[in-house]
Amino acid sequence: MAKQVKVGLLGLGTVGRSVLDLLVANRAVIQDGAGVPVQLVAACDIKAKTKRIKGVPVVKDALKVINDPSIDIIVEAIGGVKPALNYILKALASGKHVVTSNKEVIAKYMPTIFAAAKKNKVLVLYEAAVGGGVPIIQAIRDNLAANHINEIYGIVNGTTNYILDSMTKKDVEFADALKDAQARGFAEANPAADVEGYDAAYKAAILAATAYGAYVDCNKVHREGITKIRQEDIQYAKETGYVIKLIATARKWTGNKLDVRVHPVFVHNTHPLAKVSENYNAIFVKGDYVGQVMFHGEGAGGKPTASAVVSDIIKIARGGAYRVLSQAYPKQKAVLCDINQIERRYYFNLKVPDRSGVLAVISKAFAKNNVSIQAVTQRETVGKIATLIIVTHAVSGDNIQATLRDLAKLSVVKKISNVVRVGLY
Amino acid sequence: MAKQVKVGLLGLGTVGRSVLDLLVANRAVIQDGAGVPVQLVAACDIKAKTKRIKGVPVVKDALKVINDPSIDIIVEAIGGVKPALNYILKALASGKHVVTSNKEVIAKYMPTIFAAAKKNKVLVLYEAAVGGGVPIIQAIRDNLAANHINEIYGIVNGTTNYILDSMTKKDVEFADALKDAQARGFAEANPAADVEGYDAAYKAAILAATAYGAYVDCNKVHREGITKIRQEDIQYAKETGYVIKLIATARKWTGNKLDVRVHPVFVHNTHPLAKVSENYNAIFVKGDYVGQVMFHGEGAGGKPTASAVVSDIIKIARGGAYRVLSQAYPKQKAVLCDINQIERRYYFNLKVPDRSGVLAVISKAFAKNNVSIQAVTQRETVGKIATLIIVTHAVSGDNIQATLRDLAKLSVVKKISNVVRVGLY
Repeated sequence: MAKQVKVGLLGLGTVGRSVLDLLVANRAVIQDGAGVPVQLVAACDIKAKTKRIKGVPVVKDALKVINDPSIDIIVEAIGGVKPALNYILKALASGKHVVTSNKEVIAKYMPTIFAAAKKNKVLVLYEAAVGGGVPIIQAIRDNLAANHINEIYGIVNGTTNYILDSMTKKDVEFADALKDAQARGFAEANPAADVEGYDAAYKAAILAATAYGAYVDCNKVHREGITKIRQEDIQYAKETGYVIKLIATARKWTGNKLDVRVHPVFVHNTHPLAKVSENYNAIFVKGDYVGQVMFHGEGAGGKPTASAVVSDIIKIARGGAYRVLSQAYPKQKAVLCDINQIERRYYFNLKVPDRSGVLAVISKAFAKNNVSIQAVTQRETVGKIATLIIVTHAVSGDNIQATLRDLAKLSVVKKISNVVRVGLY
Repeated sequence: MAKQVKVGLLGLGTVGRSVLDLLVANRAVIQDGAGVPVQLVAACDIKAKTKRIKGVPVVKDALKVINDPSIDIIVEAIGGVKPALNYILKALASGKHVVTSNKEVIAKYMPTIFAAAKKNKVLVLYEAAVGGGVPIIQAIRDNLAANHINEIYGIVNGTTNYILDSMTKKDVEFADALKDAQARGFAEANPAADVEGYDAAYKAAILAATAYGAYVDCNKVHREGITKIRQEDIQYAKETGYVIKLIATARKWTGNKLDVRVHPVFVHNTHPLAKVSENYNAIFVKGDYVGQVMFHGEGAGGKPTASAVVSDIIKIARGGAYRVLSQAYPKQKAVLCDINQIERRYYFNLKVPDRSGVLAVISKAFAKNNVSIQAVTQRETVGKIATLIIVTHAVSGDNIQATLRDLAKLSVVKKISNVVRVGLY
């Protein structure tokens, strides 16, 4: 690496602005860590209203930054696919390393991006794309590098955790919790990427690819969001010793397949993930020697994400990273397991007429599909409709799907309000 | 770094044996991480009864390993000061990098060891010395390198956490919990290093030196163990919403001083540290950008510790680490703050005669020293002696010391059974 490292920054939104602030404010400590001075020589913001921020030149044209021959590393903090992907590929083609906080573009275009990096003998680092300030990517690649990683699971989306935590602690409905999260800046105006689980699915795909060396098609990651979770589900969970959390999983499955998925789970309140509050993230990694290690911190927000972005810059600036990390790019395409082969306990929330004989008909549908019932609770009746909650013993997703098809045919089942997995194991 | 890296191992106790197993069992994944093959060419055990273990030659004479010119890295897994220090210095003098899991020798001889490493242009890495498998040293030095670290605190000794957790969950006394821990291999036959807080103090000194770049004299680290904690203290904590934990702290203080200490604390049960069970470790790091990050995992035991040792080997094998990490050795001696300047709430457990007027006399001693009382509870009387529990508002250690001196002079105070800080802040 040269006597100093020059950085160009694309995007001055929440993350980009914090990266600028951090590179300027902590210049000395960053130089200590990197071993060489790290200088931010240009930032790009298409809506730039000023020519300098804290002494850093600001331009409107990203290509001016990307094509600046003095720049060693481009930080992409634009987010989304367009124009971020194009800029990343241009930067790589011009022989610059890329550091990005953009989970969507990495998850969707990993093979393209990594191939371009390899071709141009530069690095793409993405610590900030998963877990915000939580150093989970480096943990997998460096700190736990002696281990066979068997499983990664946890809470990787701060927005949904904030919403579920509000629903649990303040007894509010999903819509109100979402509004509150939006008012506090924890959810975006269009919350779909978070509440439908897309963001968590991108992160699960990235974690799997990093840990297991195989590209995961993020469109094939099983994904369920939290929009169907209602206060009645939260209440039942609470009464039975659980908390509902959106859990991302990336683990090894039999036959070299991977199990990568995102969905809500009833997490027992003795499990540390049940205690993860507000917009925090917490990720468990299981390795064959290290056992189970957990990383917990702010999973989003400008400052924590900037901390991760700059740790990647430092890594490149130190030198020596290229030889190893360039070899670490996934070498094959992952094959995902059939999620319906996985056995879990399930919680059903059914709306049924409040009259005798209903339970007999419904339990028959479960029995027919070899789904054994562990607990049944009938809740308060609204009008003539009662809420019937059924918790099953562990059973495969195939049997659950068959049961759902049979329930849908029953006239006594007015609505299948929710079906949620119970327990992390 | 060469085309392959050769490692020599000193010590085949719990840690050493696991390092051997890991280097042999995970050879392929370690080579992937390191970029080059990592070969264990010799292990030393003074009591060796066999000439090979899993194909690795075993010798009785450590100098044979240290003086082997083909070896690049010496792993010191002997523990303690003698003969580990001598072997470490000899290995450094012969131009070999050293990886160690030995907190005592690093904490006590850091300046000597680092000076020798610098002189010989080699590295001493010690990830395994703190937190076992929890990658806390790399987190501070690499992952959070863009941050000013302001504070590190947490549970760094698995033995004492196991004992306190048993006392809390099984309502047993210290002596019985210790015996149980010894029977399960979580405490040594001579438990003083753990239960008196020495081990945690070594780790606090190492964390402080790593984070703040200044040598900490581990003999000057304020240290209180857990031997005075009784079931009655545990019970009172429980009733008032706390759990007693042995907490190590390493944080910045005013005037470039450091606050480094180890002592029991009443941790509120809403704090994640209250939930750290059995022999687990959990360490919080506060940085100016990353916010608060927590690392949780098995803090001891052969396999997790071996995972950390081999992550250091991988770091050296990758190359590029020397230039930066050699600059990171502390450059000065730390000045520690006067712990008695720190303000905390305190719990007092006093044995007093069960008769009128006692409380008036005692509260006078508190009032005289400006120690404001927040709660008073008198517990069951045994014979004619009652237990008086007093919890104070936040007050400096100076005022507490003065109060203790005054209490000692009072004839109504038969015994000061315990004084414990309340709350992490």
